[in-house]
Amino acid sequence: MSVKQFDRKDLDYIFAVAKEMQGMVRRIGTFDLLKGKILANLFYEPSTRTSASFTSAMERLGGSVIPINEVKYSSVSKGESLPDTIRSLECYADVIVLRHPEVGSAAIAAKYARKPVINAGDGVGEHPTQALLDLFTIYQEMGQIDGLTVTMLGDLKHGRTVHSLARLLTLFDVKINYVSPEVLSMPEEVINEIKAKNIPQQAYQKLDSCLGESDVLYVTRVQKERFPDEASYEAVKGSYVIGTDTLAKAKEEMIVMHPLPRVNEIAMEVDDDPRAAYFRQMEYGLYIRMALLALVLGKV
Amino acid sequence: MSVKQFDRKDLDYIFAVAKEMQGMVRRIGTFDLLKGKILANLFYEPSTRTSASFTSAMERLGGSVIPINEVKYSSVSKGESLPDTIRSLECYADVIVLRHPEVGSAAIAAKYARKPVINAGDGVGEHPTQALLDLFTIYQEMGQIDGLTVTMLGDLKHGRTVHSLARLLTLFDVKINYVSPEVLSMPEEVINEIKAKNIPQQAYQKLDSCLGESDVLYVTRVQKERFPDEASYEAVKGSYVIGTDTLAKAKEEMIVMHPLPRVNEIAMEVDDDPRAAYFRQMEYGLYIRMALLALVLGKV
Amino acid sequence: MSVKQFDRKDLDYIFAVAKEMQGMVRRIGTFDLLKGKILANLFYEPSTRTSASFTSAMERLGGSVIPINEVKYSSVSKGESLPDTIRSLECYADVIVLRHPEVGSAAIAAKYARKPVINAGDGVGEHPTQALLDLFTIYQEMGQIDGLTVTMLGDLKHGRTVHSLARLLTLFDVKINYVSPEVLSMPEEVINEIKAKNIPQQAYQKLDSCLGESDVLYVTRVQKERFPDEASYEAVKGSYVIGTDTLAKAKEEMIVMHPLPRVNEIAMEVDDDPRAAYFRQMEYGLYIRMALLALVLGKV
Repeated sequence: MSVKQFDRKDLDYIFAVAKEMQGMVRRIGTFDLLKGKILANLFYEPSTRTSASFTSAMERLGGSVIPINEVKYSSVSKGESLPDTIRSLECYADVIVLRHPEVGSAAIAAKYARKPVINAGDGVGEHPTQALLDLFTIYQEMGQIDGLTVTMLGDLKHGRTVHSLARLLTLFDVKINYVSPEVLSMPEEVINEIKAKNIPQQAYQKLDSCLGESDVLYVTRVQKERFPDEASYEAVKGSYVIGTDTLAKAKEEMIVMHPLPRVNEIAMEVDDDPRAAYFRQMEYGLYIRMALLALVLGKV
Repeated sequence: MSVKQFDRKDLDYIFAVAKEMQGMVRRIGTFDLLKGKILANLFYEPSTRTSASFTSAMERLGGSVIPINEVKYSSVSKGESLPDTIRSLECYADVIVLRHPEVGSAAIAAKYARKPVINAGDGVGEHPTQALLDLFTIYQEMGQIDGLTVTMLGDLKHGRTVHSLARLLTLFDVKINYVSPEVLSMPEEVINEIKAKNIPQQAYQKLDSCLGESDVLYVTRVQKERFPDEASYEAVKGSYVIGTDTLAKAKEEMIVMHPLPRVNEIAMEVDDDPRAAYFRQMEYGLYIRMALLALVLGKV
Repeated sequence: MSVKQFDRKDLDYIFAVAKEMQGMVRRIGTFDLLKGKILANLFYEPSTRTSASFTSAMERLGGSVIPINEVKYSSVSKGESLPDTIRSLECYADVIVLRHPEVGSAAIAAKYARKPVINAGDGVGEHPTQALLDLFTIYQEMGQIDGLTVTMLGDLKHGRTVHSLARLLTLFDVKINYVSPEVLSMPEEVINEIKAKNIPQQAYQKLDSCLGESDVLYVTRVQKERFPDEASYEAVKGSYVIGTDTLAKAKEEMIVMHPLPRVNEIAMEVDDDPRAAYFRQMEYGLYIRMALLALVLGKV
């Protein structure tokens, strides 16, 4: 449902299971842990990547998937409530993955469901499996999370991924930097939550101010439409594009992350640098989702 | 194809198989009766529920599904005829489930197909698997069908589910009540068919007139748009909404059914009453569809 | 990627594998050669037939499919590049089938992918699996390809299937006839390629001129919109409709092929003639795609 439900012990456990999943996938590709189980993949708004990731996770575990992508054309458009849809689908499936444009919809679904529901993003609310895979990426790539400096770059105001990741990071001993145009800075609410956990944090407007100390650079997109006018966008956009020149000034062991899709905020020339971790990040998402499916179905 | 093709012995047999399916699903979830078989789930109009139900049915039997939901954008929009689409798909699949907006389309498909075709709704024509699952619900919930009083409520003119169910009920020793606004009453054609089978039937405009004697209350939606004007809709709408106050006047053992999706015609407060059978009805649909798939593929 | 990458030995090998697939499907329906493998079926434009064919091929081989049909609504509409989509999906799948409206997209995808990519049509570019199944149909129906006269009819200018098939046929000892209105004749570029391989070819405007000598009649649609005006369309359209009267003048052993969907260019009365090979052609497509999937995944 939410990143707020996890403590550090939970994360250790999920990551241990995800690592096992990674090992199994690499050795044998697919196995039959969830054979006979059915996932209803219920997407009220499209998300190719998340949908494909959960489908693959279920299939690699030997389970089956009911893909439901076009709900907007369907009973929902006839006015059916989310609880009714959920209670119908759980007659056919063993677990439901829900992507919905409205905040709180996952909680409503879980309240009415007898079967497990996994929140795959509810509007500007949460996208907890993304936050888990982000953290797992850091853990796997850096070997540990304690002691790291994590720099978040771009539109920190609207990006739910950075909000969730920042919250999860408070379970560890880290330093967090924010680099964003002032109009797109991290919301006060998140800042205060982090502060309450005594995690050092610092906001900047230019990446150069903290690039050198960063172990993790988490890049998000800065959309033109978020700015009051063309001029204020043009003034800052250059600072939020990562190229090989950026990497030249960064630590040798730093990793660059991105929730994808990207547009121009990371130049394609960066892809060949071993520090470019964003495609590996996608792959870690598979293992995290396999772990979550196995866990909620009581098979671990 | 049609509810008209079943006699009482057929129903007994299908229900016996469906009960076995229920037992297997409850014990082991999924089994390999149709392993290696492929279902083409061909939906020319969306129906999340029916599509998901057939997909789940095939997957619980160990078979695979080719989901085909977006036919309207596809070769069909290039002008391909239904027979050509069917004859192409049967090269890839072992059984075809067809949902189509035009009456008679299922019969056309079956005429040209060499593989079995299951009618999953052809416009205002039939939706026979819905009628079968409705009847199976009554059978399972009440223990038998003979001797029951079944009351159908709402828009009986346009609802193909009540037409098909009424026809199937004539194979049993039942009494049927109709409760609807006059403009939405059961079509003469259906009334005459029922009469020809000597089944007692009675039409009312208010539910109170026959609620107390009802063993099954089958609710359908009354859509505002069906009325000539706002005033005539406002005049009746209250009579067609089921609440806990309605249930207070009903038999202790009555069941409330609904083909779903519902909008307001059954209040959510009713969901917690054990007489609310509409979500169990969805689940019975799974077993009926599993039975049908196994039967048409010769695996029972 | 392209029909240009195959030589005659490759075709012999692919056809031998496809024949084995046919044998296995007829004997046991489905088998576990690709158990544990996942196909990402990535369709940027709809193609029910091709998509269903690949899905069935993967499922008959015991593998799983991630269906991705609505990419236009999804991250792609947020501006993601094809390479990024491919590199994300290959984290979840073992092989990618790509249908894309732009020429060259399959080559781009293959360049960036670490996993195998199969071109399922890239705009007016190529549709190589269609060409392979066309050729396999001729081979299976006629017993051999050398020595045959293949007549292509209809819109030869825009039909990528006839371009690809003509190119593949140059690997054999055949004669090729073209029958089309002058404005829709085979492009100079293809003509020159065929000529360079010393394959005899001849263009006609009327089918009667070469029907009697044809062993294979490959029909494509003549679309009204391709003509400069109504009159020029009306003048020729009759010549490009195949009926039983056409077949009366053809060889007893000729086969009629069509890439489907057809509209009016082959009358339905022809379907019952044993020479009508177009539905069998669909089925051969299944075996070719099974062979290709097994080959690119190294399982043959």
